[in-house]
Amino acid sequence: MKALVLCSGGIDSTTCLAIAVDKYGKDNVYSLSISYGQKHLKEIESARKISNYYDVKLMELDLSKMFEYSDCSLLEHSNNDIPLQSYADQLKNNKGLPVSTYVPFRNGLFLASAASIALSKGCSLIYYGAHSDDAAGNAYPDCSPAFNNAINTAIYEGSGKQLSIEAPFINMTKAEVIKIGLELDAPYHLTWSCYLGKEKPCGMCGTCIDRRIAFEKNNIDDPAIKYIKIKE
Amino acid sequence: MKALVLCSGGIDSTTCLAIAVDKYGKDNVYSLSISYGQKHLKEIESARKISNYYDVKLMELDLSKMFEYSDCSLLEHSNNDIPLQSYADQLKNNKGLPVSTYVPFRNGLFLASAASIALSKGCSLIYYGAHSDDAAGNAYPDCSPAFNNAINTAIYEGSGKQLSIEAPFINMTKAEVIKIGLELDAPYHLTWSCYLGKEKPCGMCGTCIDRRIAFEKNNIDDPAIKYIKIKE
Repeated sequence: MKALVLCSGGIDSTTCLAIAVDKYGKDNVYSLSISYGQKHLKEIESARKISNYYDVKLMELDLSKMFEYSDCSLLEHSNNDIPLQSYADQLKNNKGLPVSTYVPFRNGLFLASAASIALSKGCSLIYYGAHSDDAAGNAYPDCSPAFNNAINTAIYEGSGKQLSIEAPFINMTKAEVIKIGLELDAPYHLTWSCYLGKEKPCGMCGTCIDRRIAFEKNNIDDPAIKYIKIKE
Repeated sequence: MKALVLCSGGIDSTTCLAIAVDKYGKDNVYSLSISYGQKHLKEIESARKISNYYDVKLMELDLSKMFEYSDCSLLEHSNNDIPLQSYADQLKNNKGLPVSTYVPFRNGLFLASAASIALSKGCSLIYYGAHSDDAAGNAYPDCSPAFNNAINTAIYEGSGKQLSIEAPFINMTKAEVIKIGLELDAPYHLTWSCYLGKEKPCGMCGTCIDRRIAFEKNNIDDPAIKYIKIKE
């Protein structure tokens, strides 16, 4: 059994990679990192370090052309600022629309791309790390269980029943994801989540806030912040 | 209401474009043509001519990198020959697997790409021309109603309910598609279906056979073949 893991360089996909390597062995696992025109490449660098840590073959893809018309605030060409607020605060005035860091159907596109590559490489599973914090309040609708069920069926049926998605955290919080990763010794010190691509994580954007709370709930300091301090 | 039409340069997508332009007006319609590393670019040239005919803005995308590991016989780097047989004959020895001209999850990838672009462009509909001849016997599982329903739900849910798919021919044969297109004066003389990229359609590959039968059922000669003869 071979698996392909969508690898963003963050906490959730790193935990997916830890699970897949633990279950199928590093020689049966590929990782896939996709750039989409984001303002910085810190997360791609992290995906490389983490794939290297596990000694799995990383494939890299550039889909930025797909988003050249989007004004999502994560994108390099966008003049919109990345909000320094929690997702919950951002959603208060959003009238049911996703947050401004929602990249149009990004997860759908990433999973479809992963499906094409996985089928070519003889994989029968795609791992991806969507979890319930990201889906809450429709912040990222392409992280919701409804989306996940549908895209899984689409990939299963559209591949002639050769390929399925594993989204092991779809009903978990980020804190619960970290609990699993800690048990598997996932290399969280190598991960990057912050939307801003500065020297250190900003601590104030939606994903930094989400990440901090998740580590606090596990009663440990964020290993990446400790690691950056040690390197200084 | 704005719509994006996936435009392959063939019969089915040209009929979709005819419907969308008829319904929403040419200024509210975009067409999207995607190259995927196929052996010839005849169909891309047709997509350009047809978009030009309707005076709709064509966007072009190259996703060939996604298929560089696939050995599908349609791809330029593949050493496999394109079968000169009907789909039904090819499927006899296929043990439930798709035909060798199935490009791994191509329609899923194309629809996901279309979704990202459509959302960026403010469209609320994506048209695509899947029909029942292509889905028959699991020849192209990414043309089946089961796939179509699931990907439609995935796009609707994953876009925050901003975008849906229209697949008007999902339960029709190609002959029925042509009947609709003829009523709308679709420019079939500009279309290209043949998998081989020669001067004229080969008449022997799966899609040539399917196309010939569909025009015969409508009691007319294929306008593209007539058009090529006139130009000679």
